[in-house]
Amino acid sequence: MADADCLFCKISSGEIAADRVFENDSVVAFRDINPQAPTHVLIIPRRHVATINDLTDGESGDINLLFEAAAIIARTEGIAEDGYRVTMNCNAAAGQTVFHLHLHLLGGRQMTWPPG
Amino acid sequence: MADADCLFCKISSGEIAADRVFENDSVVAFRDINPQAPTHVLIIPRRHVATINDLTDGESGDINLLFEAAAIIARTEGIAEDGYRVTMNCNAAAGQTVFHLHLHLLGGRQMTWPPG
Repeated sequence: MADADCLFCKISSGEIAADRVFENDSVVAFRDINPQAPTHVLIIPRRHVATINDLTDGESGDINLLFEAAAIIARTEGIAEDGYRVTMNCNAAAGQTVFHLHLHLLGGRQMTWPPG
Repeated sequence: MADADCLFCKISSGEIAADRVFENDSVVAFRDINPQAPTHVLIIPRRHVATINDLTDGESGDINLLFEAAAIIARTEGIAEDGYRVTMNCNAAAGQTVFHLHLHLLGGRQMTWPPG
């Protein structure tokens, strides 16, 4: 399940510390160390999947769990009603740097368009 | 299931035309009429759900289907390996204007950071 060289697997296991805001059996969420908005949280599945391209039938259930966590965290952060953006990058042209699925949750300010 | 006043429900049913690139029993995808990248596709569930905040246990399965469609469309568009970004807006601070879940898929250029 875990990749021994993966930063986010190490955060999931607790081997590397992070400012956690939510976790359950399937998902961990923690604050981005380079935040781009007053709330900027990364939500990851505990299971190691590198990119959206690597999702396969029967494995994509992780994504639901990330969005359910996003809605919970948005309420906790007090940004659910005003609004928030969720973003996931796949590969270099999108700027993906850690190859373990992670959903960015950003809010607490007006977001602009286009999304980067 | 459908909301009679919803633009995206009308696109799903075919009542309003769109430049469709993918569809199955659960999902419809079509090109954004105001594209922000060489590929800019909106992927929606046929079932009417207004925002991420309205997802409930047992209903969030739609999100998996949107991401599975994103991976398929990215391959069809030839952007899967270079990369692409997926984004969903919730409520006004994120710029959500149509209150029917839609995942933006953008690619074909280098995306920047922050994501808006």
